Amino acid sequence: MGEFDIIARYFAPLSLGEPGAFGLKNDAAILNNATGRQTVVTSDCLVAGVHFLDTDPPESVARKALGVNLSDLAAMGAQSRTYTLAAVWPNSIDESWIAAFADGLGSAQNDWGVTLIGGDTVATDGPLTLTITAFGEVEQGTALTRSGAQPGDDVYVSGTLGDAALGLLVSKGEFGEISKADADYLIDRYRRPQPRVTLGPELQGIATSAIDISDGLLADLGHIMYQSGTSAALQEPLIPLSSPARSLINGSHMLIDVILGGGDDYELLFTAPPSSKADIKNLSNSLSVAISPIGTIDRITGESPIQIVDIKGNPLTLPPSSGYQHL
Amino acid sequence: MGEFDIIARYFAPLSLGEPGAFGLKNDAAILNNATGRQTVVTSDCLVAGVHFLDTDPPESVARKALGVNLSDLAAMGAQSRTYTLAAVWPNSIDESWIAAFADGLGSAQNDWGVTLIGGDTVATDGPLTLTITAFGEVEQGTALTRSGAQPGDDVYVSGTLGDAALGLLVSKGEFGEISKADADYLIDRYRRPQPRVTLGPELQGIATSAIDISDGLLADLGHIMYQSGTSAALQEPLIPLSSPARSLINGSHMLIDVILGGGDDYELLFTAPPSSKADIKNLSNSLSVAISPIGTIDRITGESPIQIVDIKGNPLTLPPSSGYQHL
Repeated sequence: MGEFDIIARYFAPLSLGEPGAFGLKNDAAILNNATGRQTVVTSDCLVAGVHFLDTDPPESVARKALGVNLSDLAAMGAQSRTYTLAAVWPNSIDESWIAAFADGLGSAQNDWGVTLIGGDTVATDGPLTLTITAFGEVEQGTALTRSGAQPGDDVYVSGTLGDAALGLLVSKGEFGEISKADADYLIDRYRRPQPRVTLGPELQGIATSAIDISDGLLADLGHIMYQSGTSAALQEPLIPLSSPARSLINGSHMLIDVILGGGDDYELLFTAPPSSKADIKNLSNSLSVAISPIGTIDRITGESPIQIVDIKGNPLTLPPSSGYQHL
Repeated sequence: MGEFDIIARYFAPLSLGEPGAFGLKNDAAILNNATGRQTVVTSDCLVAGVHFLDTDPPESVARKALGVNLSDLAAMGAQSRTYTLAAVWPNSIDESWIAAFADGLGSAQNDWGVTLIGGDTVATDGPLTLTITAFGEVEQGTALTRSGAQPGDDVYVSGTLGDAALGLLVSKGEFGEISKADADYLIDRYRRPQPRVTLGPELQGIATSAIDISDGLLADLGHIMYQSGTSAALQEPLIPLSSPARSLINGSHMLIDVILGGGDDYELLFTAPPSSKADIKNLSNSLSVAISPIGTIDRITGESPIQIVDIKGNPLTLPPSSGYQHL
C-alpha cells in the first residue's frame, strides 16, 4: 500500500470529530482552542531499541508513544486535546503491524480524550521512529512550571514508582524467581504508561511546581530543585511502591537505586504548600489516584539538592548517576 | 557531548526571545498567540537519502527541513511563528555537523521570522531523520484551504516551476552540457527552498483556494481539483520557468514532464476570481514575488480534472504518474 492509502485506511479514522484535522487531507491542521485558552505543545520521539523493545506489541508501542507526550502536557496542568504523528517505518514493516499500531492508537486516544490531527509518514532502512507532537490547553497564564517550588512545600508523587524500570529488567529476564502475575504487572507498567491526564489539570491552583517522572525520581526532582533554587529532603519509607515492586525490594534492597533512578513511570511529581493538604486528599479520593507525600522542600544548603533518609533517619547514599539512561 | 549539552549549546540559543519556549528546559512549550487568533500546525519529516542527499551541506538540510514546513503554513495563509524539532541523529554523526546544522537553522529562522520552542533528540543506527512541527497564526476562520476553487477562477503560481526537480537531476550528473552558473542555480533551488512566508498571509481575502507545490504542479493542483470538485485548463506557455530551466527545456522538450510532475519547488499555487487580478498584480509588485496566471478553473467535465494545451492549442499528453516520487 502507498503512503496515502495507509493514511486514509488506518489514520484518517482517528481524526474523526475534529474539524481542524481536515480528515488528514491537508498539509496543515487548525487548533480550535476554547476562547482565551493558551496552547501547550510537547514533542517526544520514540525509537525502537532505545525507548521500547523491538518485541513490544504494536498496541503498547502506540500507547507509549502517545502516553509519554500526554504526560508532559499533564505535568504543565494542561488539558490534552490533539496530536500529530510523524511515523518513520522500517522498510521491512508489515501492514498488519501498522494496522495493530493504529488500533492501539485509537484505543489510547479514546481512553485519554485526544484526536489525531495530522502528521507525516516515510519508510527508511533505519529503526521504527515515532515522533508525536501533542497539544493541550490551559487558561492564560496558569500553566504549571518547574520553577515555583517554595521552602516549606511538601513533595508529592502520584501512583507508585519504579515499576516501569523494574518491568524493563523483568522483560530482560533479570529476576528468575518472580511470579508470573507480578512479572506481567511490572512489564505492563513499562510498556503501557498511564499519563495522569485527569490529575494534571486539577493541580492548577494547588501545586507550586510539577513535572512528570520520565527520567527517574531523582533526576526529575533535580530539575525542579535546579529551576526553583531549592533543595528537597525525602523519606525513603514514604516512597509509594506497588506490591510487586515491594516484593522485589524486600528480596534485594539494592534495587532501591532502580526505584529512585529508574525512569518511564510517567507519574506526576509536584510540590504544594501545607495548606493544600486537604485539597490534595480530596483530589486523590475523587479521581481514585493515589497521591503520596514523600518529603519537604527547603532552602539551598550547599549540600546535595536532594537528601533522602531511610526508616531509621540515616542518610541514603544516592546512586552515582541520578539520570536515567534509556535501555 | 550528551543530549542535554547539545541542546544547551546549539539549540537553546535558537529559542531566545520566545518566553513560551522556557529556554528549551521544559518538557513542553506554550504558544503565545495574539488574542483571537487560531493556531495552524503542520508536521513534516525529512529523511537523509529520501528527502535530501547525504552529501547536502548541513546548512541547506536545516533550511529545507524548516522551509518545507513553513511552506505548508504559508499555503494556509498563516503567519509563521514557532516550531519544534525532533532530531534523530545517526550514531556516527560529528558534532561539527550538528553545529553547522544549528547554524543553518538559526540563519533560516532569522530570514523567516520564526523561533524554536522545543523538541527532542536521540541517536540511532538509522539515517538522519528530522521532524519539524511548525506553528502559525490566522485570524479565526480565515485559513486558506484546498476546497474553495470556483469555476471561472484563474489559476496562479508564484516564482518559477521545475527548478528543484531539475536541480536534483543536475546534482546526479544528468546534464553534462549545462553551465556551472545554471547548475548552481538549479541545485540551490533543490537544496534551499524559499517558502513563501510573506505571500501566503497576504492571499487571505484574495485566493479562493491554495496549496504549496511539494509533490509537483499536477499532483498538487489535482488535490485542489479533487477537494473543490472542479477541473482546470492550463496553458503550457504560461508556466513560469527560470532561465536555466528554459535552456534545458529548449534542449529537450521531454523535460516538460519534469516541470509538470517534479516536486520540491515549494511555490504557492492558488485560485482567485477575475475580479482579483489588480490586487494580485499589486501584491506581486509590493512583495517582489513573481505571480503568474497559468490557466482557469471550470466545472467537472468527466474528462481528466486537469487539461493542458501547448502554444498551438493542442492538448499535451500528461506524464503517466502525476505524483512526484521523492528521489
